[in-house]
Amino acid sequence: MKVVALAGGVGGAKLAHGLQMALDDPTDLSVVVNTADDFDLYGLHICPDIDTVLYTLSGLANPVTGWGIAGDTFTTLEMVGRYTGQPWFQLGDRDFATHIVRTERLRGGESLSAVTASLAAALGVQPAIVPMSNDPVATMIDTPDGRLDFQQYFVGRRHADEVTGVTFEGIAAARPAPAALQAIESATAIVFCPSNPIVSIGPILSVPRMRDALEAASAPIVAVSPIIGGEALKGPAAQMLSGLGHEVSAASVAAIYAGLVDGMIIDRVDEALAPRIEALGMRVHITETIMRSDADRAALAQESLAFAQAIAANG
Amino acid sequence: MKVVALAGGVGGAKLAHGLQMALDDPTDLSVVVNTADDFDLYGLHICPDIDTVLYTLSGLANPVTGWGIAGDTFTTLEMVGRYTGQPWFQLGDRDFATHIVRTERLRGGESLSAVTASLAAALGVQPAIVPMSNDPVATMIDTPDGRLDFQQYFVGRRHADEVTGVTFEGIAAARPAPAALQAIESATAIVFCPSNPIVSIGPILSVPRMRDALEAASAPIVAVSPIIGGEALKGPAAQMLSGLGHEVSAASVAAIYAGLVDGMIIDRVDEALAPRIEALGMRVHITETIMRSDADRAALAQESLAFAQAIAANG
Repeated sequence: MKVVALAGGVGGAKLAHGLQMALDDPTDLSVVVNTADDFDLYGLHICPDIDTVLYTLSGLANPVTGWGIAGDTFTTLEMVGRYTGQPWFQLGDRDFATHIVRTERLRGGESLSAVTASLAAALGVQPAIVPMSNDPVATMIDTPDGRLDFQQYFVGRRHADEVTGVTFEGIAAARPAPAALQAIESATAIVFCPSNPIVSIGPILSVPRMRDALEAASAPIVAVSPIIGGEALKGPAAQMLSGLGHEVSAASVAAIYAGLVDGMIIDRVDEALAPRIEALGMRVHITETIMRSDADRAALAQESLAFAQAIAANG
Repeated sequence: MKVVALAGGVGGAKLAHGLQMALDDPTDLSVVVNTADDFDLYGLHICPDIDTVLYTLSGLANPVTGWGIAGDTFTTLEMVGRYTGQPWFQLGDRDFATHIVRTERLRGGESLSAVTASLAAALGVQPAIVPMSNDPVATMIDTPDGRLDFQQYFVGRRHADEVTGVTFEGIAAARPAPAALQAIESATAIVFCPSNPIVSIGPILSVPRMRDALEAASAPIVAVSPIIGGEALKGPAAQMLSGLGHEVSAASVAAIYAGLVDGMIIDRVDEALAPRIEALGMRVHITETIMRSDADRAALAQESLAFAQAIAANG
């Protein structure tokens, strides 16, 4: 199998980790990661979703927070705070190293794809971690208080604002990372991880030619709903769906993906939604979708791949 | 009194600290610091001498190594090493913060003078820490193995090479920092700290118009010899003097400063050199010059200022 996973942050990284465990050869996995959350802080280029995937697949991730590195300390940030005032974004000492090395290499002219591959190799990560694009894209969140940078909304203001609109600045000029297109073309299964459909999977699908490539792919596409029982496990997906006029449900996620995704994987608690999703022209697989352990991750990954294979077999 | 100190790294920072302690109003002190050792590493701009002065005057300095911050950890660098290979230059976690913040502000268009003043203010430093220039200057060391960057020679190769030549690249185009010229003009005493006369004080004096400003200054200039009993307390000053054809002695340092400096302060062990130094047209003050404690620093600073005042009084 050649597997492509589309992922944002924590939930996406967990299922990507499951796919890494589920595959006989982890190098058969390419994880195409959202970069529209990327931002600069203290002159360093930070890619929160890439880093969450990087740390999760390398076994370094902090299992409690989901972001950052387990056991990381905050000495550098504390000193930065003495110079610049109270930090609003947490960066651990080891995490700083990632941003320092990445920033140096980007300034030296390497693409984000090349830098990401190099960082992943240094940490022993076998799957390919592929940014959706090497070009800058910035998610902007419209709120009743005005337009906010994504991290300002998400971290700075703890995603407490009502979301009235979402814009991906720069998306029209962004080109898909070549490795992403190649992986999609040669994939035998494509999995949309349980990431936020608006601001994690949404930007990836909005990169020009990316959706075309997914539609043209011979591989079946399955998506795991990040909404379970009308709630998001983590992050602002629920408020965001609601603010943008969507129902907060797995059916609503399916509707966003309709026409592109062949099969939705939803949680047992959402079983009653299956007919509505099937009415959108998708197959539905019902299972436990909450990943509390590594075994949960591997099991959901295996079910996702089996579901994709079943769809491929049935045409 | 308005005091200007010219300083490089560890020895210079110690006497600058003494002057800070000796003055009733520490804001009466301006420390003009060598920047020809500055270099970029991991995309960050590092100013070793400025940082040594900054950390020493703020009380953060590591008293054992002389460089870096006391009690600093090396978590960020260890992780950088996972990405880039074994580091050759030690950077602590808190030290990294200084370089990160400085680099961000320099890239944002602030001058090194402005950035340094801001960092010093954040750490509660009262004297002005003034880079010799806001323009880039790079000390290059000629050795039998070829020309080396200063830090490559000094840290990377542990100053083990024979020094056959020293060049300050960029010096002809460097302008003195305006604050340095202003401080020199209004000074009532000028002290050359016991820093390396070739690669610490040397670059400062080589900045166009700096030597003219010192010669034009109404304040007496006194210099503390960094060579004691034919040896340097720290660093490569002895090998460097020898390699460049100088005698390794306080008299040799005096000869380098002849025509500019009014008085030399030498150690008791070098008492016999006094007539040779006086023959250069300088006054000589003999005292204990090794600064083992804060009290030693303050005492040497007080003697330096008293010596300068005596020179001023005697015309």
